[in-house]
Amino acid sequence: MLAADTRVLALTGGVGGAKLCLGLDCLLPAGALQVLVNTGDDFEHLGLHISPDIDTLLYTLAGRSNQAQGWGLEGESWNAMAALEELGGSTWFRLGDRDLATHLFRTARLAAGDDLARVTAELAQRLGIASGIHPMSSQPVRTTVHSDEGDLPFQHYFVRRQCEPQVSGFSFEGIAEAAPNPALVAMLAENRFSHVLVCPSNPFVSIDPILQLPGLWSALRDCDAPVILVSPIVAGQAIKGPAAKMMAELQVPVTATGVARHYASHYPGLVDYFLIDESDATLAGDIDQLGLQARVAPTLMKTLDQKIELARHCLALEAR
Amino acid sequence: MLAADTRVLALTGGVGGAKLCLGLDCLLPAGALQVLVNTGDDFEHLGLHISPDIDTLLYTLAGRSNQAQGWGLEGESWNAMAALEELGGSTWFRLGDRDLATHLFRTARLAAGDDLARVTAELAQRLGIASGIHPMSSQPVRTTVHSDEGDLPFQHYFVRRQCEPQVSGFSFEGIAEAAPNPALVAMLAENRFSHVLVCPSNPFVSIDPILQLPGLWSALRDCDAPVILVSPIVAGQAIKGPAAKMMAELQVPVTATGVARHYASHYPGLVDYFLIDESDATLAGDIDQLGLQARVAPTLMKTLDQKIELARHCLALEAR
Repeated sequence: MLAADTRVLALTGGVGGAKLCLGLDCLLPAGALQVLVNTGDDFEHLGLHISPDIDTLLYTLAGRSNQAQGWGLEGESWNAMAALEELGGSTWFRLGDRDLATHLFRTARLAAGDDLARVTAELAQRLGIASGIHPMSSQPVRTTVHSDEGDLPFQHYFVRRQCEPQVSGFSFEGIAEAAPNPALVAMLAENRFSHVLVCPSNPFVSIDPILQLPGLWSALRDCDAPVILVSPIVAGQAIKGPAAKMMAELQVPVTATGVARHYASHYPGLVDYFLIDESDATLAGDIDQLGLQARVAPTLMKTLDQKIELARHCLALEAR
Repeated sequence: MLAADTRVLALTGGVGGAKLCLGLDCLLPAGALQVLVNTGDDFEHLGLHISPDIDTLLYTLAGRSNQAQGWGLEGESWNAMAALEELGGSTWFRLGDRDLATHLFRTARLAAGDDLARVTAELAQRLGIASGIHPMSSQPVRTTVHSDEGDLPFQHYFVRRQCEPQVSGFSFEGIAEAAPNPALVAMLAENRFSHVLVCPSNPFVSIDPILQLPGLWSALRDCDAPVILVSPIVAGQAIKGPAAKMMAELQVPVTATGVARHYASHYPGLVDYFLIDESDATLAGDIDQLGLQARVAPTLMKTLDQKIELARHCLALEAR
């Protein structure tokens, strides 16, 4: 049973995080989930403002995501891209016809002077999503990947170069001037959350940009709610995305312990519980030593039931 | 028989003009036709730079236009618009999925610093068009319609309001600072054309913006080639578009004579020959009195043969 006053803040990036958010969205009563989403991988492309992590979350919670493909919309058509290819235009970032509508909507509303938070809320509402979806900031923050091929804008690294370059670090352009989402900051200040979840998203390019917004991680540390981190690394591998490859290239051990060390050193005192997969149970002692309380559970989220079960498990950690 | 040195400059706006350009494009050897296209109805919409008259011409010459509909591409799909409608976005200007690619291509290239002339030339090349397609200017000129509903940007009047407002005049924002297409100006200065054709396009919102670019109409008047105007009004009606309605609202007689008077008063000495339809043959005397030499021919262009025949007729006027 969930406590009646359960109110969850989840921090998330792309696909892996969206899965846990879907579990939370299904589990919780309408409005009890607020999600703060990375926008460091937003970019301007073909004149459009594209927010890949927000869209992944929107499409996932709306039940419209293409799960086999791992991105974009189900039942999508590709006529605009086909025509753009004929014209010799830039097609490395695949924009489906219906997906394009999201970017056109967002771009038009931003051009009309609305901020990203408001436009995102409206998209969520139009898509019938009851949970609150919030960009981490309405000001632009742009992740740059430092690599053996030079500095690459995130989507160039991630999509165009398919994560092949070796990374040596990341920076988040504009972050010092970006205000963390004011609505979320206000909720934190009012201690409105019973739980803060850090989804199993990439620590370096999904969660770091959120936590490094001015004042945000200390506000999370100082709020009354426990902060629960779900490991993005299971048995030495990332379920999806380049987290494991990045850790290896950054010479961090590719283990849940390596993840724990990242959080413990960059955000001391932030994470209360670190939920690791059953297959990593032997790492619990090392993690406890880093000051995070390790907890063990099945963390794979292939089915909707597994997503809901993991969500339930996260929210029940403290009760144990 | 065409003279071997036939080199034609055509001034055009939207659909009607594009038909004659198609006739010319079919009739003339590759490269012998240069078209200068109105961009006064260009606009920025949903973050995209849209050039409706250029696109109508491109699609027409590429054999891809939707002739039944009168705009856009044949075999178009509308998935982006359907999705945008679901999101509550702005859908009054219908953008097909494949048409979107043209706008994305153009917008991206303009954002990268290329000018409209270069981007247009590249689109024409990609679409396999041998004739030269030139925007009247690479600088923005924006037609404003003065109406009983106030001042309306052209596409708001034309598409959104379906030409319903009563017009009282037009202005072309930015025209004083806009340079006429430099490549065309250079060709004119070198007397490279054997004929200048003014297509049967709307005098007020298609041709006036071109002719009122600084220095352009006097350069056309002063070049050696005869200037041949094809009447957009046939038997008191416009074949397509709001020209007749505008003339009535501006209290200009809705006849070929009314058109002749517009050109004679605004651009004295510009037009050498005014080609009117057979059905208007009785107006020839009035037109001659205005200083334009009236010529009579069948001007309807329903079939491709009729388009080519009218093109041939225009180019043979002087030989008679």
